[in-house]
Amino acid sequence: MESSSALLPDLGTEIVIPVCAVIGIVFSLVQWLLVSRVKLSSESVVSDSVKNGKNGYGDYLIEEEEGMNDHNVVAKCAEIQNAISEGATSFLLTEYQYVGVFMVAFAILIFLFLGSVEGFSTKYQPCTYDKEKLCKPALATAIFSTLSFLLGAVTSVISGFLGMKIATYANARTTLEARKGVGRAFIVAFRSGAVMGFLLAANGLLVLYITINLFKIYYGDDWEGLFEAITGYGLGGSSMAMFGRVGGGIYTKAADVGADLVGKVERNIPEDDPRNPAVIADNVGDNVGDIAGMGSDLFGSYAESSCAALVVASISSFGITHDFTAMCYPLLISSMGILVCLITTLFATDFFEIKTVKEIEPSLKRQLIISTILMTVGIAIVTWTCVPSSFTIYNFGTQKVVKNWQLFLCVSVGLWAGLIIGFVTEYYTSNAYSPVQDVADSCRTGAATNVIFGLALGYKSVIIPIFAIAISIFVSFTFAAMYGIAVAALGMLSTIAIGLAIDAYGPISDNAGGIAEMAGMSHRIRERTDALDAAGNTTAAIGKGFAIGSAALVSLALFGAFVSRANISTVDVLTPKVFIGLIIGAMLPYWFSAMTMKSVGSAALKMVEEVRRQFNTIPGLMEGHAKPDYATCVKISTDASIKEMIPPGALVMLTPLIVGVFFGVETLSGVLAGSLVSGVQIAISASNTGGAWDNAKKYIEAGASEHARTLGPKGSEPHKAAVIGDTIGDPLKDTSGPSLNILIKLMAVESLVFAPFFATHGGLLFKIL
Amino acid sequence: MESSSALLPDLGTEIVIPVCAVIGIVFSLVQWLLVSRVKLSSESVVSDSVKNGKNGYGDYLIEEEEGMNDHNVVAKCAEIQNAISEGATSFLLTEYQYVGVFMVAFAILIFLFLGSVEGFSTKYQPCTYDKEKLCKPALATAIFSTLSFLLGAVTSVISGFLGMKIATYANARTTLEARKGVGRAFIVAFRSGAVMGFLLAANGLLVLYITINLFKIYYGDDWEGLFEAITGYGLGGSSMAMFGRVGGGIYTKAADVGADLVGKVERNIPEDDPRNPAVIADNVGDNVGDIAGMGSDLFGSYAESSCAALVVASISSFGITHDFTAMCYPLLISSMGILVCLITTLFATDFFEIKTVKEIEPSLKRQLIISTILMTVGIAIVTWTCVPSSFTIYNFGTQKVVKNWQLFLCVSVGLWAGLIIGFVTEYYTSNAYSPVQDVADSCRTGAATNVIFGLALGYKSVIIPIFAIAISIFVSFTFAAMYGIAVAALGMLSTIAIGLAIDAYGPISDNAGGIAEMAGMSHRIRERTDALDAAGNTTAAIGKGFAIGSAALVSLALFGAFVSRANISTVDVLTPKVFIGLIIGAMLPYWFSAMTMKSVGSAALKMVEEVRRQFNTIPGLMEGHAKPDYATCVKISTDASIKEMIPPGALVMLTPLIVGVFFGVETLSGVLAGSLVSGVQIAISASNTGGAWDNAKKYIEAGASEHARTLGPKGSEPHKAAVIGDTIGDPLKDTSGPSLNILIKLMAVESLVFAPFFATHGGLLFKIL
Repeated sequence: MESSSALLPDLGTEIVIPVCAVIGIVFSLVQWLLVSRVKLSSESVVSDSVKNGKNGYGDYLIEEEEGMNDHNVVAKCAEIQNAISEGATSFLLTEYQYVGVFMVAFAILIFLFLGSVEGFSTKYQPCTYDKEKLCKPALATAIFSTLSFLLGAVTSVISGFLGMKIATYANARTTLEARKGVGRAFIVAFRSGAVMGFLLAANGLLVLYITINLFKIYYGDDWEGLFEAITGYGLGGSSMAMFGRVGGGIYTKAADVGADLVGKVERNIPEDDPRNPAVIADNVGDNVGDIAGMGSDLFGSYAESSCAALVVASISSFGITHDFTAMCYPLLISSMGILVCLITTLFATDFFEIKTVKEIEPSLKRQLIISTILMTVGIAIVTWTCVPSSFTIYNFGTQKVVKNWQLFLCVSVGLWAGLIIGFVTEYYTSNAYSPVQDVADSCRTGAATNVIFGLALGYKSVIIPIFAIAISIFVSFTFAAMYGIAVAALGMLSTIAIGLAIDAYGPISDNAGGIAEMAGMSHRIRERTDALDAAGNTTAAIGKGFAIGSAALVSLALFGAFVSRANISTVDVLTPKVFIGLIIGAMLPYWFSAMTMKSVGSAALKMVEEVRRQFNTIPGLMEGHAKPDYATCVKISTDASIKEMIPPGALVMLTPLIVGVFFGVETLSGVLAGSLVSGVQIAISASNTGGAWDNAKKYIEAGASEHARTLGPKGSEPHKAAVIGDTIGDPLKDTSGPSLNILIKLMAVESLVFAPFFATHGGLLFKIL
Repeated sequence: MESSSALLPDLGTEIVIPVCAVIGIVFSLVQWLLVSRVKLSSESVVSDSVKNGKNGYGDYLIEEEEGMNDHNVVAKCAEIQNAISEGATSFLLTEYQYVGVFMVAFAILIFLFLGSVEGFSTKYQPCTYDKEKLCKPALATAIFSTLSFLLGAVTSVISGFLGMKIATYANARTTLEARKGVGRAFIVAFRSGAVMGFLLAANGLLVLYITINLFKIYYGDDWEGLFEAITGYGLGGSSMAMFGRVGGGIYTKAADVGADLVGKVERNIPEDDPRNPAVIADNVGDNVGDIAGMGSDLFGSYAESSCAALVVASISSFGITHDFTAMCYPLLISSMGILVCLITTLFATDFFEIKTVKEIEPSLKRQLIISTILMTVGIAIVTWTCVPSSFTIYNFGTQKVVKNWQLFLCVSVGLWAGLIIGFVTEYYTSNAYSPVQDVADSCRTGAATNVIFGLALGYKSVIIPIFAIAISIFVSFTFAAMYGIAVAALGMLSTIAIGLAIDAYGPISDNAGGIAEMAGMSHRIRERTDALDAAGNTTAAIGKGFAIGSAALVSLALFGAFVSRANISTVDVLTPKVFIGLIIGAMLPYWFSAMTMKSVGSAALKMVEEVRRQFNTIPGLMEGHAKPDYATCVKISTDASIKEMIPPGALVMLTPLIVGVFFGVETLSGVLAGSLVSGVQIAISASNTGGAWDNAKKYIEAGASEHARTLGPKGSEPHKAAVIGDTIGDPLKDTSGPSLNILIKLMAVESLVFAPFFATHGGLLFKIL
């Protein structure tokens, strides 16, 4: 076997990774500084405007500036922003309290289960893959897995919380900038997204890197044990993300659906009208669901794909020869990703200018293309400097030889598959193309045809992404087995900072529109934020596409790692144990979606009753003389989401445990494969259907083409039908759809962490029979 | 190995099977005779009524007879029935012409592909499983497979066509009997369903039995070749069913959705109002979609499960020792099923009486319970008299010993799983229980919450059926490998005559209501037929539940037979070839549903335009002075369904060919497993969601409870929301949902038939790489 050492010395690796992480954090702070220059205190508005005039920004203020000197408006925006920020903070803190209890309980479970594998013995054991050597006891794995689990959970909490703080800091600023033009507003929203994207990517990398180095002090040369313990980090991140996504998703959609059903449909008042009692809850929801939930989610994906790659690599030739640089290949890819994304964002904020509404979507699309092209070069650099030209990978009992160019192709195929998924998602959810326009057109004959066309669109949008995922899997699997899949997932997530930036941009713009409406700003400003928001719906769908695509690859990699660790050599569909797992696994996403959809529905009904009650009992509310009671609506959303997030969360967290303990590792393998192949489809179709309905409605409202004007204006019968579609799409695209990718990842990573226990003590039911 | 011969001699088997089939046919003719006693010519109405008065029927005429002597009404009913019958006949003949061309082309393909396996050689070959013996050449398999394929297709055509003829013969008669009371109408509708059920079950059995005996003249002792050739019968039946279901489904729902959107929503005229130009097309649709399509579908399931069991058995000890009685076990189970169903129907028509509307659903439910209990005894009798106490079954390369009590359990577990699926389906789709009532209640807040709750209901309704299927698979797989799965499927289908009877009852009642409305009969009669129809929605959903559950088992059995025949010993998910097959297979049901839903949507839009045009241009149409142009609407439905059934049909028929030829048998195995586990879920949820929406609407319209009255009456806002849900559910429950079970079966049986070709010449792409 030909083998050579990598170019980058280990010391270089020890320096490069933290340096890149710090660069990411610094860049994020710079972006934050730029956003903070939009002042929310009224006295500085003029000076701010003057300042901006100096630095060349003024060039593309092609739209008339209005309301610039209205100090009341600024004060009102600040006030609304504070209300939203307070509501979001208070909800997240409540959520974290409940989830915290669950996390501690689960941490104890991890410790007990993993510790019991060797009966809590402190004696060293022969290593699993090299019986000659002695490895650290199972008790150590139990302790360190528990620690990394908690660390992952805390990092996830920080990611979500910081994201929310940044978003609520940015939304009123985006509104204020919208007075100066759509380009200005776009820059503020996008920069804020970038703050979040870079902070999360860099933070995730740094914490993981530090953890590895700290654990290494104890584990020393036992890399197998070290990286097994590290997988707890992924589990912690994903568990937290699960509750964040589900809880936040229920919160935001209960408020949104409730607000729309009474406000838009019954009372005929605009979206985000301050008279609507649910309006603050709706805006809070965007921040806790779409921002904090999504931040936790993508952080989880990132942590899991890194862990999957590391744990597989630990039993490859890197692990055996203790080649630290090659071992850290996944982290080096992420480090390179931060640098590439940094350059890419400059194209959006500094190199090009957004002058008209039509340029927003192409600009965001350009971000995807530029980052993908640059990253391909980046992957090549990392691969040829950090990985030996040939090495071996553990492949279910055998060692497989991999060349470095094959590894390069594995990462790249994941990266480019992500781009394809992004483009397909854009095609199916943007109102610039025929699919959404057809859906809008079907509103002519009412809500029923709108729903039928929307569902068909979502189903159809699955085809190309699945082929893209299948090709990535085939290429990376063939070249480098499960390691290939894990690095392909990392490739897709390597541009996570950009992905998060354009994803977060959506809810920020949405909120900005809400604030403009509530602050009583003019119709034109609302039109500008609406245009930003329509692009945001598409980018949100693209972000979800990435999240789902990478989740599919990540969970397959984790599944592979689980199978290796559980000592199974084949997962044969033609055995009853596996097949029943497969069909039940394929059912789980339906069970889960039923729970989350029903939760949103029920919570929305409660919200509707409360909003109706307030309109009926508060005199002068409809006329705008009296203020609604926002707090009660916030409380309904909070209570509903806290209560309703438990059953779906428990379903996901308990299924692997129950199946593993009672049915054993073969059935669990089937469950993982089944939920993966079925969940991916529902997740993609749900996100895209929802996104398409939302933009079909916006298409009619905007009336930007001859065709769109025949369907509008607001309040026409086709528009009403479009609003119904939009409302149905809300829980699909923001609650059940995006939660499903956490479902498949989380079950896989949990199985991986518990694999030693299941392999030793699992399958009770079959043992009894 | 302990082994003993069966009690029933081979001669007995040769007699019992055809005798049971003939009994079924005779019974069906008797039922037809009873239905035909309701006269459609006006002069005999009175004498008929007198006659009925004599034979005790009069006892339960608790409802007032009305319009009995209005000869015009009878003549009008006869006229409408003729119009429906003519429309349905003409559509089916057109459909068969197109499909006929396809079938002939496909038959040639089968001959060429299978013939080429050994290069069209006429020399005898060593048998696959016993290399010592000589078997018939591949060319013979090609010829006889082609023949049995054509025979299966023709039998399927006959099944569908006869079903349609019976239904259109019965619908006006049901309407006329509804004048005398709901009990009378129920008996006519149910008897007509029984005519269809028994005719199809007996006909399918008889043709299969005769074919086996004819083929045996050539094949002699080469049972392996004989039963391989017989699998073509299943393929033919299912291919035809595919086009029947899809074409019929598009036809009926284009007309239904189109009629409702203009009639009910825009013009505010009742369902089935004769002024609506699409009303005849709608009623024709029920007969070509729900009746002919479903008849072909269940016949296909029956033929395939028999073929799967036979082909697996042919390489077991039955085949080797040439034990004809044991070999015919699947046919003997079906023969027993006919006798059991015969006794069971008497409970509905003769032993018990339906006096009130509320008794309809319990009576149909009782049918399921009685047939299941009796059949369990029947299975025991067949098993202990026809099967040796111990025998061996081929299990992917090894021989597995099976006891006769284990075989009994395999069949019974399938039978009882069917009952559970039936009950769960009833629970989720009948408006007597809380799930549908909750959906109805959610209409209070509009169509959006109705759709959200309906989708959640559908997702939830998947859980228990999947567990029931999983348990049957586990039990039968563990006891008797793939033979166990095949006989479990047969167990579920053993009561097919009852299943078809209660399934066909639904569309017949639906048509009866349509005829009552069109003939201008009184409101009370319409109420009675509506009550029959509401129960019919539930029974239709139950029928679909059976069809899906049995399809899951059948395709797994076919999949197993395919794997055996293609000489694969494991289907390991952890190989790239299989995994990409799995994920792409799981995507196919979405692709297929996207096509069918979009087809219904587009065809409905065309229908809406035509209906609107007629209302706008034909003077006096709305006032009832002028007659609409029914023929144009019939033509729109016909053209749309003929044109639109080709792409989804081609997707299903071509996928196994393309995957097998280019990617080989491993990837094809993955595709089959993936489409099976994913398709089952969508099929169940789509059927139940649609059924629930339909009955939520009926619940509000009927206003039978305090709660229902707060939501109604017809025309109220909640009712309008319910109508939207009902319309969305139409393509889900009657087009894409039921077609999906054909998708999974058809791909499996097609793979089985082409297995020798794929194993020899397949996987071109990987061979080139």
